[in-house]
Amino acid sequence: MSTQSRKMAPVGVFDSGVGGLTVAREISRQLPDENIVYFGDTARVPYGSKSRNTIIRFSEQIIRFLKTKQVKAIVIACNTASALALDAVRDEFDIPIMGVVVPGARAAVEATRNRKVGVVGTDATVQSGMYTRVIHGMDPDITVIEKACPLFVPLVEEGFKEHKVTQEIIEYYLESMRNTDIDAMILGCTHYPLLRSKIRAYMGEKIQIVNPAYETAMDLKKLLSEKDMANEGGEGRHSRYSFYVSDAAEKFRRFANTVMPFDVPTTNVVNIEEY
Amino acid sequence: MSTQSRKMAPVGVFDSGVGGLTVAREISRQLPDENIVYFGDTARVPYGSKSRNTIIRFSEQIIRFLKTKQVKAIVIACNTASALALDAVRDEFDIPIMGVVVPGARAAVEATRNRKVGVVGTDATVQSGMYTRVIHGMDPDITVIEKACPLFVPLVEEGFKEHKVTQEIIEYYLESMRNTDIDAMILGCTHYPLLRSKIRAYMGEKIQIVNPAYETAMDLKKLLSEKDMANEGGEGRHSRYSFYVSDAAEKFRRFANTVMPFDVPTTNVVNIEEY
Repeated sequence: MSTQSRKMAPVGVFDSGVGGLTVAREISRQLPDENIVYFGDTARVPYGSKSRNTIIRFSEQIIRFLKTKQVKAIVIACNTASALALDAVRDEFDIPIMGVVVPGARAAVEATRNRKVGVVGTDATVQSGMYTRVIHGMDPDITVIEKACPLFVPLVEEGFKEHKVTQEIIEYYLESMRNTDIDAMILGCTHYPLLRSKIRAYMGEKIQIVNPAYETAMDLKKLLSEKDMANEGGEGRHSRYSFYVSDAAEKFRRFANTVMPFDVPTTNVVNIEEY
Repeated sequence: MSTQSRKMAPVGVFDSGVGGLTVAREISRQLPDENIVYFGDTARVPYGSKSRNTIIRFSEQIIRFLKTKQVKAIVIACNTASALALDAVRDEFDIPIMGVVVPGARAAVEATRNRKVGVVGTDATVQSGMYTRVIHGMDPDITVIEKACPLFVPLVEEGFKEHKVTQEIIEYYLESMRNTDIDAMILGCTHYPLLRSKIRAYMGEKIQIVNPAYETAMDLKKLLSEKDMANEGGEGRHSRYSFYVSDAAEKFRRFANTVMPFDVPTTNVVNIEEY
């Protein structure tokens, strides 16, 4: 691929479903000239309760699919896949691949004053211990407290954001975290930013809430610039977004329209198991 | 296959995950001489929010897998797959296949006195309208009220059965149903019998709660007898159960041990996408 056509090539972004749209939204804000190909694995969502081998196999299939779209780089916009599959797929494919865990961990390390950080995420992410390992790689003296909150995803997916049970489940999961003296907490699942205001209200002012999506978009910007891959846009050009899913869930489009700052067009369905 | 070896062959039972174990349990009670091969699609669970085409494709793969285990008949122990895929796969495979919707519907038709029946299930099951169609095929004058309760499955899966939010979500979903004058209600999802006592307490004494698992086991008994396929057991013989899953979730085994009346051995992991 020539340098010019590489610059014009899209960035691939994938997630187990709709959650990664919060990352795509952040990329569209910070890198408005980039084209994006988004893949949501709606046929096999959620990933948070599944095993490492399965998450790696699913991620490999999706990366093979995204490569058919000539993407120049891939963002794994799913904490579970970032935590469990990034190392494996990075060794396997000849394309820059980044996840959300390292950017999120770095932001928390920079945010904490008392070196006590909390992480909330899916079962699989928390059991992997990846956030703790990455944070300790940056600063071994930071205390990390991780907590799985498996019901947050279905509550968001089923539209219970404003229902009182969501408040009760936030309290149920986060009470022990609030009783610690952490001063920064990572929302280690792409769905959780959609509950941010409620989580912030419960955790209180003294705890800084870290959303890895913002940091991930910053890291992508740096990566594309370093590799001389950034799309420089051009007169009258508009960036293009395409959305692919593994299941024809109309739910995806409806949800996407509440997350993205523009109308999400019809999504294309891909039989991802064939990749 | 000879008549004798056909009689000895196992029954295949499948579900999107652990829920179908409530059906396997009922089969083991009513047909203690039958061998069972159970498949739980733990890599792609849940089915309840996915589309018909995807559910059919998943069901085809699982039936092809079960056929490699020389099953003599297959029970789709998942309401969503029964509602969306049974008709399609029945035409496609040369083996008796039954679902849980017809037995559940028949039991409700027999139970109702005032000819008003409620059905609770997943989004996909309720949107398919299959329970209503099947009930109307039996008695077109019965009024059927369906209601999707998508959070029941994650609440059961995450062990929130006894938590107060489960009570609140039961009230949230079922309040409108309780305000009708139905006198029978089908638990149209294999997870829901695990919430039966709470649902029964909320709905009150006048409503008969129908669990399709029981009726399905009865129908299987009839089918095996009609086709001269029933396993007649024998001196000192014990029926054998084997459990396969598409993801190595230790969760499956833990959950299975709370449902089945015996210790569930190590489960075997199958890459179901290859079938």
